[in-house]
Amino acid sequence: MTTLSITGGRVLGPDATVTRADVLVDQDTGEIVAIGDDLSGEETLDASNALVTPGFVNGHSHVAMTLLRGHADDKPLDSWLREDIWPVEAELTAEDIRIGAELGVLEMIKSGTTAFSDMYFEVEEIADVVDQAGVRALLGFTAITVGKDDEGARADMEESLEIARKLDGRADGRINTTFQPHSLTTVSEAYLDEFVPKAREAGVPIHFHANETVNEVEPIVDEHGVRPLEYATERGLLEPEDFIAHGVHVDEREIELLAETDASVIHCPASNMKLASGMAPVQKLLDAGVTVGLGTDGAASNNDLSMLDEARDAAMLGKLAADDATAVTAETVVRMMTQGSADALGLDSGQLEEGAPADLAVIDLESPHLTPRHDLVSHLVYAAAASDVRHTVCDGQVLMRDREVLTLEESAVLERAQEAAVALVGRADG
Amino acid sequence: MTTLSITGGRVLGPDATVTRADVLVDQDTGEIVAIGDDLSGEETLDASNALVTPGFVNGHSHVAMTLLRGHADDKPLDSWLREDIWPVEAELTAEDIRIGAELGVLEMIKSGTTAFSDMYFEVEEIADVVDQAGVRALLGFTAITVGKDDEGARADMEESLEIARKLDGRADGRINTTFQPHSLTTVSEAYLDEFVPKAREAGVPIHFHANETVNEVEPIVDEHGVRPLEYATERGLLEPEDFIAHGVHVDEREIELLAETDASVIHCPASNMKLASGMAPVQKLLDAGVTVGLGTDGAASNNDLSMLDEARDAAMLGKLAADDATAVTAETVVRMMTQGSADALGLDSGQLEEGAPADLAVIDLESPHLTPRHDLVSHLVYAAAASDVRHTVCDGQVLMRDREVLTLEESAVLERAQEAAVALVGRADG
Repeated sequence: MTTLSITGGRVLGPDATVTRADVLVDQDTGEIVAIGDDLSGEETLDASNALVTPGFVNGHSHVAMTLLRGHADDKPLDSWLREDIWPVEAELTAEDIRIGAELGVLEMIKSGTTAFSDMYFEVEEIADVVDQAGVRALLGFTAITVGKDDEGARADMEESLEIARKLDGRADGRINTTFQPHSLTTVSEAYLDEFVPKAREAGVPIHFHANETVNEVEPIVDEHGVRPLEYATERGLLEPEDFIAHGVHVDEREIELLAETDASVIHCPASNMKLASGMAPVQKLLDAGVTVGLGTDGAASNNDLSMLDEARDAAMLGKLAADDATAVTAETVVRMMTQGSADALGLDSGQLEEGAPADLAVIDLESPHLTPRHDLVSHLVYAAAASDVRHTVCDGQVLMRDREVLTLEESAVLERAQEAAVALVGRADG
Repeated sequence: MTTLSITGGRVLGPDATVTRADVLVDQDTGEIVAIGDDLSGEETLDASNALVTPGFVNGHSHVAMTLLRGHADDKPLDSWLREDIWPVEAELTAEDIRIGAELGVLEMIKSGTTAFSDMYFEVEEIADVVDQAGVRALLGFTAITVGKDDEGARADMEESLEIARKLDGRADGRINTTFQPHSLTTVSEAYLDEFVPKAREAGVPIHFHANETVNEVEPIVDEHGVRPLEYATERGLLEPEDFIAHGVHVDEREIELLAETDASVIHCPASNMKLASGMAPVQKLLDAGVTVGLGTDGAASNNDLSMLDEARDAAMLGKLAADDATAVTAETVVRMMTQGSADALGLDSGQLEEGAPADLAVIDLESPHLTPRHDLVSHLVYAAAASDVRHTVCDGQVLMRDREVLTLEESAVLERAQEAAVALVGRADG
């Protein structure tokens, strides 16, 4: 076997324990074969003065939206989408989406993320980027039926199903897929009733936006007389493999439903704050036994894709939401950004242990903002930054070594993205 | 004159305008002498692919608390102070405080902060570090009278006054001072009535914690029958040069009082979230005409001292507090972290213009998370990180060039801080 060792560091194990250890990886299988003393591989990554963590799992993103980063801020969700985002998205070419995905995946690798779940369109372009970049992804085409005639609506739903079938298992199995009705208010009942069973037949999980704003809750209650997640359950959504993005405005009954069905929630605190959507009751969800992962959402409502920023936001907002400084602890958030997201997405990664996928990040600890080192779990959540990530490894392959990304050419990606973004906004402004 | 030029960049001017320009500095006076095309000085800082911003002004900190970073997280304010922070602080030596201040000031310089307002003790140690490091600071000794006998209480108040008198103007005028009753619940009425007039005679502004938690509001209402800021005004506090830290739980009348008196508020969003203190009504304060600055608070409740993290938190939390995604815009936050804080602290810095102090930071824009560059003001608030700061200049002197801090020896500071912090917690654990 071809081996890689990550040596001289401290390893964040399950249950947030930190121990001095080396990690040995079989690059042929992409798995961790040993964690212990004095391990050496043919290739070595230096982890001295560093913390080896599971690669972060970004549970909800629109990766190609990096091209719209900073294009329109400080607007409310509804008019922001209608006036600023959708008109520009209407101009997006397949090439733009490839370029935006390159930029987003580059940013993710540089911030220690090794897997992400994405909702967008021109998904084959995104799949190609994932394949080349070496990360894992759960991809899908996002279907919207409201405002479309039956032909258009049906085409969207078919496309979401077709893409899910077609791309599943791509990139040596690093790509899996989800079926993606955009949300409960943007896909109408009849199409859910027709296509959800087809997704089940195809064996693909379902990923959709739910309960993000009060404007997503009230129309469901008005039309169907039940809360959105009750309505979703009635429609056959919320199976154990499914996950919703946001889950901000969920009541006690909906929290119970999530726990009973074993469906997961991807919490997106930065986006929820920036769009003034509200505060998800994260501690309540966890207390009820719901699997909660963490996601950045798109770069247009964040505005970065660093899971370390998201972790800090999750810990802080979780306390405010619970009105309790002991809620959503650092240890809880570390679990959310690794195992929590991985469980939601159905991935085996998210923990460093023998036999697990070698998806990991090495965080440099030698800096003023990470000194002194009383508690590395606290540092990971409250103080570490994307720039502290020294190396990133996914599926046993080194994607970044000493801040240099090996699978994408950084300067070329940045240049292409700048040009494409300027041209795109120019076209949208007409 | 000895000159320094910052060339090839874009300059963030007043009113958040961004223009391509060079900056010329007279290092003898420490002032900006010109902003325009083709300026060259004897010394040059490269600002190509970068944004030149005013140095950030951290309006409220406890800089030496860096030694407690990550020591005790996820606890509520009251028991956190009593059980975790105060017992360790009781063990702090003057040497510890010097070492903690070195670490904190190092972190500030590396994140583009050129001035800060600090509340702590062993203030002469902190002043020495400020002098050596080359930043500006408004320093003071924090007096607490509650729980002390008259001798102890009086000694605290005298010390706060004495330190303010003694250190004012130190470090070639880079150090100014404030008189610091800790808060309205920890300094009793009689001492305020005796010492506030003395502070006025001495001509020093007053900096105190106010309305941070509901537990700071209720006792005042119960004892004095008025809200805290009404009580403060009655005691002679809230003159135009004064500023309060936090101002989370302020009602309409208190907001009016702040506007009428022209006293300022330093908003500390990260600390307010992490301690679940609440959400300051920042947009309401601004709408009423109150000067609002931005501060990190201590590293034990944040856990970093980067004003760029604080800016992101302020924009996001401000929207959530206002239930309005258009509130507390990026432009507003840029003003808060520069001019807003500078105005609160009575500093001339905070704007880049001819004749202003040459206090500035150069932010590298060439990275995935700052691509594309639709809007640099948005990037500064929502996406830029401490590690993007390329150079830091204060009073015309280069404090950091290409990430290397010139006035403090980084590796030695980190080593001393790690040792001192471990020993300190060891002593406190007994």
